[in-house]
Amino acid sequence: MKGEFEFIQDIRAQFHAPDGVLGIGDDCAVIPQEHGMETLVSTDMLIEGSHFLLEDITPYQLGWKSAAVNFSDIAAMGGEPVGSFLALALPRSLPSGWTDEFMRGYRDISERYGFPLLGGDTTASPQSLCVCVTVLGRAEAGRSIKRSTARCGDLLCVTGTLGDSAAGLHALLNGNKTCNASVQRLIQRHYLPQPRISEGRALSACGHVHAMMDISDGMGSDLRHILDESGVGAYVELERIPLSEELKAYCQCQGLDPYDFALDGGEDYELLFTLSPDTPRTVLDALAGKFEYSVVGHITEGEKLVWTGSDKDYKGFRHF
Amino acid sequence: MKGEFEFIQDIRAQFHAPDGVLGIGDDCAVIPQEHGMETLVSTDMLIEGSHFLLEDITPYQLGWKSAAVNFSDIAAMGGEPVGSFLALALPRSLPSGWTDEFMRGYRDISERYGFPLLGGDTTASPQSLCVCVTVLGRAEAGRSIKRSTARCGDLLCVTGTLGDSAAGLHALLNGNKTCNASVQRLIQRHYLPQPRISEGRALSACGHVHAMMDISDGMGSDLRHILDESGVGAYVELERIPLSEELKAYCQCQGLDPYDFALDGGEDYELLFTLSPDTPRTVLDALAGKFEYSVVGHITEGEKLVWTGSDKDYKGFRHF
Repeated sequence: MKGEFEFIQDIRAQFHAPDGVLGIGDDCAVIPQEHGMETLVSTDMLIEGSHFLLEDITPYQLGWKSAAVNFSDIAAMGGEPVGSFLALALPRSLPSGWTDEFMRGYRDISERYGFPLLGGDTTASPQSLCVCVTVLGRAEAGRSIKRSTARCGDLLCVTGTLGDSAAGLHALLNGNKTCNASVQRLIQRHYLPQPRISEGRALSACGHVHAMMDISDGMGSDLRHILDESGVGAYVELERIPLSEELKAYCQCQGLDPYDFALDGGEDYELLFTLSPDTPRTVLDALAGKFEYSVVGHITEGEKLVWTGSDKDYKGFRHF
Repeated sequence: MKGEFEFIQDIRAQFHAPDGVLGIGDDCAVIPQEHGMETLVSTDMLIEGSHFLLEDITPYQLGWKSAAVNFSDIAAMGGEPVGSFLALALPRSLPSGWTDEFMRGYRDISERYGFPLLGGDTTASPQSLCVCVTVLGRAEAGRSIKRSTARCGDLLCVTGTLGDSAAGLHALLNGNKTCNASVQRLIQRHYLPQPRISEGRALSACGHVHAMMDISDGMGSDLRHILDESGVGAYVELERIPLSEELKAYCQCQGLDPYDFALDGGEDYELLFTLSPDTPRTVLDALAGKFEYSVVGHITEGEKLVWTGSDKDYKGFRHF
């Protein structure tokens, strides 16, 4: 079978979006509306045994996470929430109360981030549980931030810290839940990711962000999308990659390399963005007053990606 | 586990759409836009072993049908196409070329009905194949036709003929593919349904349609949605239900009752609509010049559904 990216490239070559519409290939599709606004749409499918195991994740967490990974795509374009659509294929073997708990998690994150549930589909599944969420957002025309518009000289930045979710998953899979006191926070970041909606809005509003996406497959993979789509390269300084104290403590305790989690791990749902080098200091400071972000490198000419401070080449997490 | 409708009712009670937005409960959500238009959105999930069997349906047919059942929801609101989003969970065991054929079917119907594919998601599935399509349409503000607005005295109408798809499925499941020459047409209606986009547009444009939905679970089930949501009843004359010659021939050959297929069968994807009793004759004739439809009864006061010409009570097809 073809790899995921090859399959998507095939489809992109066959299906063309109408003029003025941004179709396949970014975090969201962008559909212009009649008067000065554009609609953002994204869809993600989570399937039992591939994205989650029912014996590991609680229904509340799965409800939350199914929404979170989609809301994150709206954040990645700098959009504001419109609503979500939820399709569920439910095995008959689910314990009583499971769907209520799933919906409670879905409702909590929807209320927290302001995405009303507007529709969906439910069906019985003979085998795996399958969840598919589609999310709609909106932005002022021309204000959606794409992957393809990074420019040489841009500062390369990320919100929050990277690798926590992947380390949380590692702890779960290896029975290290009690390695130290802060492991629970890593596990929480894995199960209850926080989409960076307000951060994305602020970045869009500041007017100096050239390219943006969310980090779902690891920065080692996702950064390459920005570079490929924009036809540029990047120089990334490993020592500037933001690592949480919890991640560092876990890796020290386990004898692991935190950069493996931070760059190859996946499921961070932080924002990766490029800022114009001309961004005034006052704007940078205003952004820093609203949320944590780090400058981790810069965009270069050519299409080369250089990691300084490591001899590894990070490629992110692969689904296929 | 709860039944499908009970589960949806629970969710409707918990999730409220913002003012002015039509959320859960119709064929599509209706989201007002800034200037005189509204966005229509619907999502449907098809899962192996529940909606289809891989050994029965060709990948081309599955690609076509996955899109068709969603396009039909836009037709059911009288909307025009904007685009679609396709999420796929693919087992590794699929034969080589399977996805190419699936995408060929999806592309053919998308081009035929004018829905560009604008995005999606692909992932590996450890077990079942799962397809989730989300479709976007649009209409002029206030022109989307809902289920909840049927009025006492309205003519009750359907497009095309009913029961063909269900009879095609019956022929497949019972090895009756060669019962007579026309069985292939029934099977084709099962595998390659035609969403009634232009019919829905014409009905919306005529200005006399009060309520509309598409028939996916059998008229015996779907009519009840219009009646429940509108708080009305209906009087349906069985002899006016449109049956194809192919369906009649198949039922005669097999000793079956065609009304079981037509009213309980499901997957017709015809439009069920109510027309104002004041609709001018010229409008009725103009519609009849564009496509086939039949007046099958009328809307009554109270909430009772009466089938005349049969002592059965038809309830449609149930998923759970």
